[in-house]
Amino acid sequence: MKKAVVLLSGGLDSSTTLAIAKAEGYDTYALTFDYGQRHRIELEAAARVAQSLGVKKHLVIGCNLRGIGGSALTDDIDVPKDISSALTGFHASGMIPVTYVPARNTIFLSFALGWAEALSSADIFIGANAVDYSGYPDCRPEYLKAFETMANLATKASVEGKFRFTIHAPLLRMSKSDIIKTGYALGLDYALTWSCYDPVQTAPAGVSSDRKPAMTGYAPCGRCDSCMFRKKGFEEAGLQDPLEYAV
Amino acid sequence: MKKAVVLLSGGLDSSTTLAIAKAEGYDTYALTFDYGQRHRIELEAAARVAQSLGVKKHLVIGCNLRGIGGSALTDDIDVPKDISSALTGFHASGMIPVTYVPARNTIFLSFALGWAEALSSADIFIGANAVDYSGYPDCRPEYLKAFETMANLATKASVEGKFRFTIHAPLLRMSKSDIIKTGYALGLDYALTWSCYDPVQTAPAGVSSDRKPAMTGYAPCGRCDSCMFRKKGFEEAGLQDPLEYAV
Repeated sequence: MKKAVVLLSGGLDSSTTLAIAKAEGYDTYALTFDYGQRHRIELEAAARVAQSLGVKKHLVIGCNLRGIGGSALTDDIDVPKDISSALTGFHASGMIPVTYVPARNTIFLSFALGWAEALSSADIFIGANAVDYSGYPDCRPEYLKAFETMANLATKASVEGKFRFTIHAPLLRMSKSDIIKTGYALGLDYALTWSCYDPVQTAPAGVSSDRKPAMTGYAPCGRCDSCMFRKKGFEEAGLQDPLEYAV
Repeated sequence: MKKAVVLLSGGLDSSTTLAIAKAEGYDTYALTFDYGQRHRIELEAAARVAQSLGVKKHLVIGCNLRGIGGSALTDDIDVPKDISSALTGFHASGMIPVTYVPARNTIFLSFALGWAEALSSADIFIGANAVDYSGYPDCRPEYLKAFETMANLATKASVEGKFRFTIHAPLLRMSKSDIIKTGYALGLDYALTWSCYDPVQTAPAGVSSDRKPAMTGYAPCGRCDSCMFRKKGFEEAGLQDPLEYAV
């Protein structure tokens, strides 16, 4: 079996990407970062998704992006709520939101490259999406191609001619609703995934309802960028989101 | 003052690079990684060099490359000794040594890019050297150029047209002896730096001689790649290495 390293945040996109890599016949190696996210619910979600999709290994790398700063996702900056431009696309307006983390995908792909080389895997999957996204520059196809070019100059494996690395971004041109339909068709349980940037505590720790087994005591806010894209995606797909939102 | 992020391992090359960035008039921000190196002496050296050169900030990022594997510098693989080909250059023979860490410079430069963006700094310095080096693919000019291209597609700052990132590698085409002469001319104290991959314990912790103030109780082995390059560099420069070797 050929091996693939798959970046897995535990969100909807990366979880679907993992399901796709598996369906394409790869032995999957899931890579998750504990980078000082405000909410560790993401890490729990990643672990459940990895287990449910039968990865060969799930590696969690700790690295503190809080030291770097510059983002609402790692710093003490408010996550924006109810911003309607989120749904029309910041990239169209040239604005990039405060939830952008400087060089995040570059950092994550670099670790994926290192692990792929150590595993003798030529294939790296990332759930980047250039359609229903928040205008992050490191989700664009030209960026991913430039990373791939760099990767093939960076590594012993490629310089010695053993193999050429490929960055796979199967969701790149899919709408959120198509992503969700694809995941459903592959049997992915979206109840295990988590998208919200700013979860709301709804119950004491240890108490959970039947509808949100993975996210003990928390509900997605329903109002941040990521929740808004997710809700819109499920609506357009004509499917029920298994998560129960705070609003 | 313009700002520069400088990758600083505490070794001879990166310390000289920091001295050069300072001499070029930058406010310097030194970035060091605690990545599961076998020897933490490097981290101590980086802290002393950063302080001695008056950096604005010294950020140490913890990230565990041991989980990735694939290198004698992070795994339990023996560091090679007394390999004469080290001095003629592995790259000429097409061999890359086991001290290669998969994607290390890519990972380090990615963090530097994130920090530079958060600091509004357009300039990143790395002590990569393509002459007296050990054949690492991620020290070659074509690699560094590809990283720079990618960096300028990756980031909010570059996409919004605020500035273009430049990867500076001032040592790229310098011999080790020229690097050492340059550092001396800039007043860098090489007694603060550390190069050895495989230090030898020479004295109980807390006891140090006058000649190796930074490296309490340890001496450089004198036989690994990195020591051999350093010794040869000092010899060719006609200067005395302030470190006392075990052999």
